[in-house]
Amino acid sequence: MHFGSVFPPMPTPFTNGEVDPSAIRFNVERWMRAGLGGVVALGTNGESALLDEDESDRVIAAARDAIPSDRLLIAGTGRESTRATIAAAKRAAAHGADAVLVRTPSFFKSLCTPALFTRYYTAVADASPVPVLLYHFPAAMGVTLLPETVAQLGEHPNIAGMKESSTDAAQLAAFVDATGPTFSVIVGTGAVLYAGLCLGAVGGILAVAAVMPELCVRLLAAVSAGQHEEARQLQKRIAPIGRMVTSGYGVPGLKAALDLAGFKGGEPRAPLASATREAQDQIRAELARVAEVV
Amino acid sequence: MHFGSVFPPMPTPFTNGEVDPSAIRFNVERWMRAGLGGVVALGTNGESALLDEDESDRVIAAARDAIPSDRLLIAGTGRESTRATIAAAKRAAAHGADAVLVRTPSFFKSLCTPALFTRYYTAVADASPVPVLLYHFPAAMGVTLLPETVAQLGEHPNIAGMKESSTDAAQLAAFVDATGPTFSVIVGTGAVLYAGLCLGAVGGILAVAAVMPELCVRLLAAVSAGQHEEARQLQKRIAPIGRMVTSGYGVPGLKAALDLAGFKGGEPRAPLASATREAQDQIRAELARVAEVV
Amino acid sequence: MHFGSVFPPMPTPFTNGEVDPSAIRFNVERWMRAGLGGVVALGTNGESALLDEDESDRVIAAARDAIPSDRLLIAGTGRESTRATIAAAKRAAAHGADAVLVRTPSFFKSLCTPALFTRYYTAVADASPVPVLLYHFPAAMGVTLLPETVAQLGEHPNIAGMKESSTDAAQLAAFVDATGPTFSVIVGTGAVLYAGLCLGAVGGILAVAAVMPELCVRLLAAVSAGQHEEARQLQKRIAPIGRMVTSGYGVPGLKAALDLAGFKGGEPRAPLASATREAQDQIRAELARVAEVV
Amino acid sequence: MHFGSVFPPMPTPFTNGEVDPSAIRFNVERWMRAGLGGVVALGTNGESALLDEDESDRVIAAARDAIPSDRLLIAGTGRESTRATIAAAKRAAAHGADAVLVRTPSFFKSLCTPALFTRYYTAVADASPVPVLLYHFPAAMGVTLLPETVAQLGEHPNIAGMKESSTDAAQLAAFVDATGPTFSVIVGTGAVLYAGLCLGAVGGILAVAAVMPELCVRLLAAVSAGQHEEARQLQKRIAPIGRMVTSGYGVPGLKAALDLAGFKGGEPRAPLASATREAQDQIRAELARVAEVV
Repeated sequence: MHFGSVFPPMPTPFTNGEVDPSAIRFNVERWMRAGLGGVVALGTNGESALLDEDESDRVIAAARDAIPSDRLLIAGTGRESTRATIAAAKRAAAHGADAVLVRTPSFFKSLCTPALFTRYYTAVADASPVPVLLYHFPAAMGVTLLPETVAQLGEHPNIAGMKESSTDAAQLAAFVDATGPTFSVIVGTGAVLYAGLCLGAVGGILAVAAVMPELCVRLLAAVSAGQHEEARQLQKRIAPIGRMVTSGYGVPGLKAALDLAGFKGGEPRAPLASATREAQDQIRAELARVAEVV
Repeated sequence: MHFGSVFPPMPTPFTNGEVDPSAIRFNVERWMRAGLGGVVALGTNGESALLDEDESDRVIAAARDAIPSDRLLIAGTGRESTRATIAAAKRAAAHGADAVLVRTPSFFKSLCTPALFTRYYTAVADASPVPVLLYHFPAAMGVTLLPETVAQLGEHPNIAGMKESSTDAAQLAAFVDATGPTFSVIVGTGAVLYAGLCLGAVGGILAVAAVMPELCVRLLAAVSAGQHEEARQLQKRIAPIGRMVTSGYGVPGLKAALDLAGFKGGEPRAPLASATREAQDQIRAELARVAEVV
Repeated sequence: MHFGSVFPPMPTPFTNGEVDPSAIRFNVERWMRAGLGGVVALGTNGESALLDEDESDRVIAAARDAIPSDRLLIAGTGRESTRATIAAAKRAAAHGADAVLVRTPSFFKSLCTPALFTRYYTAVADASPVPVLLYHFPAAMGVTLLPETVAQLGEHPNIAGMKESSTDAAQLAAFVDATGPTFSVIVGTGAVLYAGLCLGAVGGILAVAAVMPELCVRLLAAVSAGQHEEARQLQKRIAPIGRMVTSGYGVPGLKAALDLAGFKGGEPRAPLASATREAQDQIRAELARVAEVV
Repeated sequence: MHFGSVFPPMPTPFTNGEVDPSAIRFNVERWMRAGLGGVVALGTNGESALLDEDESDRVIAAARDAIPSDRLLIAGTGRESTRATIAAAKRAAAHGADAVLVRTPSFFKSLCTPALFTRYYTAVADASPVPVLLYHFPAAMGVTLLPETVAQLGEHPNIAGMKESSTDAAQLAAFVDATGPTFSVIVGTGAVLYAGLCLGAVGGILAVAAVMPELCVRLLAAVSAGQHEEARQLQKRIAPIGRMVTSGYGVPGLKAALDLAGFKGGEPRAPLASATREAQDQIRAELARVAEVV
């Protein structure tokens, strides 16, 4: 399985408050035409924390409908308990996921030791019908994986790689250096796509790729071709929107940006609220600025 | 409804990995004989993050069975989405809960503004069949309620109070000072029970109360009677065990302490693991030390 | 030496940018008339971080001039190096300090282990001509003393106590419980004066005491007399100003409050700037509100 | 002035507890032979926080003695007060510094706003006889510069660039993108040298460059020549020692590594202590491992 592409962590569109499968298909088809390597469903940006188990299944099924079999559907299936995570991984595979992306447990922070992570991910990987990607997002989860832990987990035949969502280049390099060539480190945020690829990451799962997929695909191609100056210029272009749809305005900002870019974004689920008018104006202005530069 | 008592946030006992209602009843009956004001089910220490919705219902029902109608069953029903929280509150009430304890949403940390909390808690309180207690646990959740927000929420007729689980006495005092006499601030951790009561808290929801309920009840009575020196000595006695079963060894430590004190503790659910032998030895030694002093 | 009083951590007044000894004497005389137990010079609020060594000596000498011999002059003498701290302690004693308040070193945070603190404070206490008070201010310094370390240091015959400047009541209680009756724990911030005294602290070094000394002295007396309801009401009255002159507006806020209360505050030294007009208005309004309640 | 080189932030050697100018000259001469672009004196690693003003002057003078006039002597002169920083910059220039490196003030953390930083650095740059480099080290100082603030300060004719000592690639890129081509962003830690250069940094001030200067110089040359694979391999080689002499074992580790590599390291000043035997063994083993790979 090849993770050397760019994937959008797709938001979940709602119509009248309910998951809208047709909007999912609309978005996914368009992303596929833009050359993305597949889609991540039910990540942080998919508001997976706000969906129940049945809704999660419907999201995966709808995404699968629109993804060709030669592209990847990666499904977020992390839960706090080992058994719920395994159950979610099995259901995701049954609904067509090619791989599962499993965030670190984090509720009992002081108990989240290297031993706990090893235990948890080993049990999940043992039971999952499809390959497992670790999902490391210390700023959001408040817990940290060590390079040694990742190196050890990387030996498991059913653990294929990790999404690293911090912007810490030393940490990302440590994960690459600690693991072997068959373990895929995937950049988890647009702000460090170019830096991460330089350091040995193979691809990206990036909110900004949902909004401007072509630029992200070109950046990956430029690094592959050794065109570093081109890559750096592309990085500079995607950075401001990348910030707005993540640390800046979060999921509401990402959904607003999708609407402005012709995708189906819509409202987030309560207690989240839509992006403010001011946020929308900033996103619109920045999208216009980027478009002009092209 | 009167929250001026001590309540244990009960752990959820498992037998062969499944919720054990008879063990719940055993523990609850013993706590009731010790003079506690009721029980909190499905709090942080109840491993609620590791239970599914059906299991949650069974825990509430089992606890209710063993709690006299003149004592309180408070059920933890916080979820990340407003609608899941409301659904959980309705089910909890249907299974016999007298009040619900609703932790702050926290997954989308940068979006957890005062406005989000106001929106969320207002919607939940509007819909809940039973009174709502806010649950503020900044160290675990990574988000913070402001006194102004709590003051505003305290005006809602169906918001009865809050559990404050930090050890910050300035913050606890600010919550008491910002709210009126009908709003109950409840100390959320044994380490600051005495200090919190001095500052105007009315009671406590304390892990240590599950292990040594009598001492906690005596401490509350001493403060009520103005016997501050007695209260301070009791505080000093409960503090070490209080630390061990919370910040020290967490839920596994609490379950080990229960087993050592004659309750039904048992193993936590994976990925949590039982307390180490060393932790158990420390807890046993401290329990013996406290018993001698009595 | 008796630390069972309230002490103001006096700001350093400047005239035309230079230390103004006459303004120091003016303030100190007024504080002494208000019944305070002495003065702390060169603490955090004294802008000691912005003074050179000669200026520090002049501040101590000026304060000593105005403090009767039966009240205490405590001088802040913490530096990053052991030898500079010792030199400062000797100079402070030579200029009339009765005790020195020594903040934790903090520049090399990752090296600030319990062993380093033990080494540092032992060397300082061995060499200081006057008793040493530890100064623990984790929020400002980014380093933490453990109760075990404080207990060990408390055995040193020349270490008399500590100023605990966090608002964490569990931590303050742990320091009291870990040390003996000859070790004085002193509350370091007005927000938790009452709670700290309940838990066994003997006095307070409080910015708010510089502005409203009488109320702080009354609060200490009330606790000593067992009048807890009175103490709690006083705590509630000093809390808002206490917040404004510390976490709210910092040293500039404290200096503005002094000016408004008839003391000599004046401008802080660059790069600090005077409190904004808005901050001054809030402080003025709150001072008026407190005065009315009296 | 050209900062497109690698500079070691030189430790300050002590003999019998006093600054040793001959050891400084020994080290500097050897670094110059290794092709480094000059030296940074009195940085964090120079234990500047533990030196008095006279000692600081002697360190600068000794370094200048051994640095050819066509290489740069950069001196750390940040103090908490604006006036002490200006005085230090003037003295450094008088003793031969070509530029000054000025860390952010940080003692009054809550007052360290963008406005304070702008005020402070503008005043310092107005008065300094030599160009000023901003020094941003959020992990150590606990305060953060915003890209907007740096962009504004970069307009000052006497502010030449900045040392960015975090490992956050998004932040480093934001500083590069926010400033013009005449503003030099300098990587502040070996862990992200390669990533930083990819993103537009022009050089590095790196503890690891004091120990293995040749590898760092080669890495910079490789990036300049577009040899990215070579640069990445070099990055991988310097990373482990880089970690050990910074976040791993700090200044004591750096001094131990210098001794092992044939430089004059020696003991740090109290309260710092020499690296433990275990730390020394790890550093020795890693140095041997790197040497073999060459």
